[in-house]
Amino acid sequence: MTDEITARRDELLGLKTPLFYDSPVHLVRGEGAWLYDADGRRYVDLYNNIPVVGHCNQRVVEALARQAATLNTHSRYLDDVILDYAERLLGLHADGIERVVFTCTGTEANEVAMQMARIATGGRGFVCTDAAYHGHSDLVGSLTYAPARGRPDVHSIPFPDAYRPIEEGLTSGALCDRYLAELRAAIDDFATEGVQFAGVLFCSILANEGLPDIPPGFMARAAAMVREAGGLVIFDEVQAGFCRTGRWWGYEGTDVVPDIVTMGKPIGNGFPLGACAARADLVDSFRERTHYFNTFAASPVHGAVGLAVLAELEERRLADNAATLGAYLKDQIDVIAAPIEGIGAIRARGLFLGIECVEDRVSKRPDRGAAAGICNGLRKRGFLTGTSGAYENQIKIRPPLVFDQVQADFFLEALADVLRGG
Amino acid sequence: MTDEITARRDELLGLKTPLFYDSPVHLVRGEGAWLYDADGRRYVDLYNNIPVVGHCNQRVVEALARQAATLNTHSRYLDDVILDYAERLLGLHADGIERVVFTCTGTEANEVAMQMARIATGGRGFVCTDAAYHGHSDLVGSLTYAPARGRPDVHSIPFPDAYRPIEEGLTSGALCDRYLAELRAAIDDFATEGVQFAGVLFCSILANEGLPDIPPGFMARAAAMVREAGGLVIFDEVQAGFCRTGRWWGYEGTDVVPDIVTMGKPIGNGFPLGACAARADLVDSFRERTHYFNTFAASPVHGAVGLAVLAELEERRLADNAATLGAYLKDQIDVIAAPIEGIGAIRARGLFLGIECVEDRVSKRPDRGAAAGICNGLRKRGFLTGTSGAYENQIKIRPPLVFDQVQADFFLEALADVLRGG
Repeated sequence: MTDEITARRDELLGLKTPLFYDSPVHLVRGEGAWLYDADGRRYVDLYNNIPVVGHCNQRVVEALARQAATLNTHSRYLDDVILDYAERLLGLHADGIERVVFTCTGTEANEVAMQMARIATGGRGFVCTDAAYHGHSDLVGSLTYAPARGRPDVHSIPFPDAYRPIEEGLTSGALCDRYLAELRAAIDDFATEGVQFAGVLFCSILANEGLPDIPPGFMARAAAMVREAGGLVIFDEVQAGFCRTGRWWGYEGTDVVPDIVTMGKPIGNGFPLGACAARADLVDSFRERTHYFNTFAASPVHGAVGLAVLAELEERRLADNAATLGAYLKDQIDVIAAPIEGIGAIRARGLFLGIECVEDRVSKRPDRGAAAGICNGLRKRGFLTGTSGAYENQIKIRPPLVFDQVQADFFLEALADVLRGG
Repeated sequence: MTDEITARRDELLGLKTPLFYDSPVHLVRGEGAWLYDADGRRYVDLYNNIPVVGHCNQRVVEALARQAATLNTHSRYLDDVILDYAERLLGLHADGIERVVFTCTGTEANEVAMQMARIATGGRGFVCTDAAYHGHSDLVGSLTYAPARGRPDVHSIPFPDAYRPIEEGLTSGALCDRYLAELRAAIDDFATEGVQFAGVLFCSILANEGLPDIPPGFMARAAAMVREAGGLVIFDEVQAGFCRTGRWWGYEGTDVVPDIVTMGKPIGNGFPLGACAARADLVDSFRERTHYFNTFAASPVHGAVGLAVLAELEERRLADNAATLGAYLKDQIDVIAAPIEGIGAIRARGLFLGIECVEDRVSKRPDRGAAAGICNGLRKRGFLTGTSGAYENQIKIRPPLVFDQVQADFFLEALADVLRGG
């Protein structure tokens, strides 16, 4: 059955279309943080951040169905729903995040952000980290694991990480300086090369990099350096946003209010929606220059779905749940992992955790095979996780935020068993 | 009321966010080819191609709601629904269109197509027309009204048009040769400039260009020339596809089977969905090289919505309706426009018509102001059209394909009245 559907998939969607697990899961139903396969088997979903308020959330589905049955048009007509949503969404952001451009995906939101920064600064050069992922278009994809040099308009810097520092033996402050010197060099290189600097694009928690231990003060000092050099600070909240970390936005943990912020993934609980919000002047100059129009975006359906997601996040206090259960998981995994030499560290930002698999705790050499093995072992036991991080050696735990204590305890038991080689 | 909502829109979405009509329409409900505003006023929708099977189509909304309440996940799990849809969709295409990559928008589909062509050919250079629009990302947007030369990897050619030919006094065959010589020159320029040629990206009916009278044989000979030069033929069916022209695909009118075809707008009746389909080897090499993954695309909801749209198009025989009513509108508008010197020509491809506004029929100088005036006049009478074409001097008529005879007759009466200056 699985072989048959996999063969059909190759035939219709193309060979090597990405799939999870040695034995892929054939899903047919979802509810809350549960997923069910074609054989009726139940899984705890510890991976999917997109259905942030739960798979098939009733309020979101009802809002979607009701609006889709009433009106669903593009944004060149006047419509209240999308404005109500824009107002609510902007109200959740820091002062200075004033206007919003809606898109259909996070990739499109990052396209808008980069174009917006280019228009505002007149520059073309962006700095990102060397393990960044911000989307799949030609422009945004140019940031994916970008080389430090060699492409005229993108320079990458080593992502800041106190666990595997760029230089050993430094104090935290000196290490922060060291990483800032890398940013300085990347900006200076643009000047040398005659490329005007446009800004940085960072995930506010460096999720794709593997939630590294960022030396305190790095983000705030990096933002100041970028602005002093005439660039803008873009924070990608596609993974960090919408209560994942126990706060509304990842940037709330950085002491930086970005000039431009992008949103995606959980924003519509699975409905294709993205957003790029920024200072008024930045959005206005972008609008004026590009006459940006996105066929399916800023529709009344975008508004209705987006509002329903925000209402669920607030009324069910899911930021608190992320903080509380995230801390609980972190503490329990610390205990489980303590005697296991192959677990180097547990990274945690609310309900986003990474279990760092290493060959040993001294060398800290990433053990990608071990991570994949644990992930496949958990899948066999009915727990869906993934692997992640710059070295793909982390077990990624990032469930829908309706994840509960009972599911957490089921998982911890299975994890302990798998880690003990059970 | 309208002023208030417009001011709120400026404040939240940015100044100069595009709007239609001198007096924008504040919509609250849609059904079939009808739209209703906040004052309860009814409009015949002659503009919107996206709700191809009608605004708020019941079958599509039900399929959407049912699937969104059952399972909505990304494509790294196995799922039958998206495969059933891929099979149905590919089955509607010519032999040679074998595999499909789903996206969330037409822009993303054209991103995939261009990246796919680059990977397959090893080239970077694309040729488009000088009035093309294929989307808003940095890469795809580089084709928008691209200059003939000056950008290293995009060259544009004058779009072929027998109504305003590049050179007067030629026979149809000689005119075709003349336009092909432009394509030849653009390809040769890439060779001179040391840029390897990747292919062409054309809308199969040149919709954005204004549905020009393409000299017979142009597309087939252009495709042969492109392939001989090592390039691929990408046809953009975002506007031409899904029965708009009275056939499933615009390319059916060209004697060309493209190497790569892109779809968008009507494909999901307003749900954010796009697709790029191509020969198996092209899709496979794209998958292998990029590991392309699009968070919201190829979901079970994409499949359910896409299938419902195809079922409606087929069961309600909307291709036939497009052909029949399109021909009827063309004939009637020809009669109405005959005595009016300011109407130069009526372009028609099924239920996609353009009324060409000119200063006079000899000079054929485009009259953009007249087109805007007629469009605003029709809006006042309750008929929603738009302006379009390379010179924005055409009244664009492109209703949902459920548009009917009664609505057509209402419209013709209003059009006659507006054209007579009523």
